[in-house]
Amino acid sequence: MRPESRKQEIINAAAILFKEKGYSAVTMRDLAKAMGIKAASLYNHIQSKQEILSTIIIDLAEEFTTGMNQIANSDQNAIQKLQNIINLHIDVTLRNSDGLASLNNDWMHLEEENLQYFEKMRHEYEESFRNIVYKGVDKGDIKSYNIEIMVFSTLSTLRTLYLWYPKQKNIDADILKRDMMSVLLKGIV
Amino acid sequence: MRPESRKQEIINAAAILFKEKGYSAVTMRDLAKAMGIKAASLYNHIQSKQEILSTIIIDLAEEFTTGMNQIANSDQNAIQKLQNIINLHIDVTLRNSDGLASLNNDWMHLEEENLQYFEKMRHEYEESFRNIVYKGVDKGDIKSYNIEIMVFSTLSTLRTLYLWYPKQKNIDADILKRDMMSVLLKGIV
Repeated sequence: MRPESRKQEIINAAAILFKEKGYSAVTMRDLAKAMGIKAASLYNHIQSKQEILSTIIIDLAEEFTTGMNQIANSDQNAIQKLQNIINLHIDVTLRNSDGLASLNNDWMHLEEENLQYFEKMRHEYEESFRNIVYKGVDKGDIKSYNIEIMVFSTLSTLRTLYLWYPKQKNIDADILKRDMMSVLLKGIV
Repeated sequence: MRPESRKQEIINAAAILFKEKGYSAVTMRDLAKAMGIKAASLYNHIQSKQEILSTIIIDLAEEFTTGMNQIANSDQNAIQKLQNIINLHIDVTLRNSDGLASLNNDWMHLEEENLQYFEKMRHEYEESFRNIVYKGVDKGDIKSYNIEIMVFSTLSTLRTLYLWYPKQKNIDADILKRDMMSVLLKGIV
């Protein structure tokens, strides 16, 4: 197996353990045991538990940042941009719900530089989201409710999708995208 | 001070500590210190940390259960019932966001009987919510999107309100109720 794939395999196994027990409670020994290898072998691929955590979280945060920047800088209207943001969250959730659990539960365990980088990305993400809504209200594409309430309502649902969707057996990804989009943008009444 | 008020004071102080450090990390000694009293004095009012946690969480869960039962059994239509559920969540959040943090973060630390009782109440709450949406779809009051997606979208926002609202400085309770209601029911577009 290529070293890169091996590293990815370690990261995936770690994300599952972090989700089950929380970052702080997981040891490198637990991780080695879960993978059926010796703890010493882990260190051929990664330096520390912190390196694993930051790889999981920073990769995801950068994916959201890149996605958001593309969306925000496009010449689409606010509604189309929100649709693309909803799709971005659903796509990332479908692909990596274990990683999102680490991001949501354990971001505060990132160490100094990565913690600052993460918080900066999260802040900028929210700012871009807020700006899209703000401009949409300004142009009349979006209703003129309190901006913070609209941003919170939408993001709180998208950000907890990773907890809920993996437990659903009867909702396929197409239905999820179609109905989530309608519910979040046009409401249920 | 009446014993009951003293107990409530202990519970309120504990909810803040649980929110900051997590239930597992808080000791009775920490709690006594935060209140500026001796640990031994705490035991005149409560038996254990577990008793505090279960009081916080079971009281809240019973409040939601009672509220939901009244709403579900009324002869209002689905839209009015959903409006009342949204108001119920906002009212509880305004009154006790620290307690809701314990409920959301630490319910899994409840011990056997209380854990079962809590999980039963949570399950029945979700069932009642689902039923209201289901009947609303059936009668044409609510759009016929996937029921689970509508329940999740609404509840995920209401259940994370306790995290977001205390940080908002410029949104008063009336605006919150009015705009949250509109956003969740009628959407933002």
